[in-house]
Amino acid sequence: MNNILIIGCGLLGSSLLRRIHKKKIAKKIFIYEKSKSNILKIKKLRLPCIVIDKLDKGVVNYDLIIFCTPMSEYKNLILKINNFISSKTLITDIGSSKIETSKLIKKYLKKNIYWTQSHPIAGSEVSGPEHGKENMFQDRWCILIKEKTTKKRNLNILNNFWKKMGSKVIVMTTEKHDKIFSITSHLPHLIAYNLVKSAQDFEKKQNYDLIKFSAGGLRDFSRIAASNEIMWRDIFFNNSNNISKAIDLFIKNLTEFKRDINLKNNKSILKKLIQTKRVRSKILKLKQDINKPDFGRV
Amino acid sequence: MNNILIIGCGLLGSSLLRRIHKKKIAKKIFIYEKSKSNILKIKKLRLPCIVIDKLDKGVVNYDLIIFCTPMSEYKNLILKINNFISSKTLITDIGSSKIETSKLIKKYLKKNIYWTQSHPIAGSEVSGPEHGKENMFQDRWCILIKEKTTKKRNLNILNNFWKKMGSKVIVMTTEKHDKIFSITSHLPHLIAYNLVKSAQDFEKKQNYDLIKFSAGGLRDFSRIAASNEIMWRDIFFNNSNNISKAIDLFIKNLTEFKRDINLKNNKSILKKLIQTKRVRSKILKLKQDINKPDFGRV
Repeated sequence: MNNILIIGCGLLGSSLLRRIHKKKIAKKIFIYEKSKSNILKIKKLRLPCIVIDKLDKGVVNYDLIIFCTPMSEYKNLILKINNFISSKTLITDIGSSKIETSKLIKKYLKKNIYWTQSHPIAGSEVSGPEHGKENMFQDRWCILIKEKTTKKRNLNILNNFWKKMGSKVIVMTTEKHDKIFSITSHLPHLIAYNLVKSAQDFEKKQNYDLIKFSAGGLRDFSRIAASNEIMWRDIFFNNSNNISKAIDLFIKNLTEFKRDINLKNNKSILKKLIQTKRVRSKILKLKQDINKPDFGRV
Repeated sequence: MNNILIIGCGLLGSSLLRRIHKKKIAKKIFIYEKSKSNILKIKKLRLPCIVIDKLDKGVVNYDLIIFCTPMSEYKNLILKINNFISSKTLITDIGSSKIETSKLIKKYLKKNIYWTQSHPIAGSEVSGPEHGKENMFQDRWCILIKEKTTKKRNLNILNNFWKKMGSKVIVMTTEKHDKIFSITSHLPHLIAYNLVKSAQDFEKKQNYDLIKFSAGGLRDFSRIAASNEIMWRDIFFNNSNNISKAIDLFIKNLTEFKRDINLKNNKSILKKLIQTKRVRSKILKLKQDINKPDFGRV
């Protein structure tokens, strides 16, 4: 490719930038980033890119535009790029939910422009270009979204692109994507936030200094609950239907656990505690985690 | 000390054994372990101890007995040691809940024998003597329980003992202990089990192969939910009152999160997502975790 534009150069945007540069995928990489503090970091880090300060009638024809901002910024950005974009440009994004973005694209993006959604399963609890890294997507899944209007050619281009990023690519619909990730990612994050919130409420009420004893479990959740709040608000709002159902299932199961505990129902609780181990074995078998005991990170 | 008896030589019992040996705290270390497979492992590992196969009238006077079994085994073990124990022996344990054990001791332990409870905040999702390690308790908190009947002399002995294990010691009541750990440890484990159970239910219902996409959050919970089921059943049953209240608080907060999500209440949700970050900062400040981003363990 000649020109790639990355909109939003935080943790993942800057990781794409680093990898695109390393693998020589584009002659020029352009960055549009609204945060002045991020721009300063990008310059200080000497990331190999051209920072543009306006998204308007460009002189550049982009082969690929990648949206790496929180999803709540998409609408305004679409309205801006509509002014200069041509049908030669392929657009993608790395957002964590897909149905709402699909609606937005249909409603606001100029006709005859193609946007095929991506979702690389990568990230961390930290944000910002200083934490990005070239191998962020290595051996991670990347979901490509196929809709009725999706061109096979565009899927192929993005498939090649993500493979060069190091990812394993899989194609699914927006509906399937949003259901799966409501359970494997969105609910776990919400639960982590909720657990930390509950610990705070408890600490306030009891006036106990309990955080210092967090090594027994709370600590691991607090890490997840330190993730970027704008990104997660957007995900929770965009995938609210599926997350709402996931919460209901979660509360139903937790209420059953509570009953088992209060009634000391040995058979029922042991069955559950043993069953969950099977998921762990499966996760290890699928190499989604390493089989190394965790004694706390020190 | 001359003789220490460790009852139950799994992950934590074998870690104590290794450290006691290294620090030369006792002339002889005795092990009572009912699992034949664990005894084979102990012998294969050549752990420096004398394995005894019966808990009956012993010829040995123990200075210290440490219970390292699941708490559901305490009662039977107490009835056995009652046959040979003398008031020269101090007893402790490493159980994760304290009120029920305190009742058990009062009810079943022979009079004039002292048992002062300990709770080292250490462990992992793996079990068995092969995973034990000499520095398991290094820089970890160890809670000592002070009750009305607790002798200051015994607290001092155990304080010294745990300091030699590498721990930082703090003294509290059974009530305070069980409240604090219902939130910082017991609820987080239950939540992890419940999340994995919910993912299994969802997978069964939807017939989606979702475990392979677990890197987005579910993975970290599955590790915690792989912990020993007998140990955790005992903790959930023994601390059921506090855990039950913690579940209620958790469900109340989760229901509020759900309402925020469904109503897209921006102000309310952002307040919560930002507040939880403060707990993370506090945990890092208190050195309960390392300040290193986690991109997934590979």
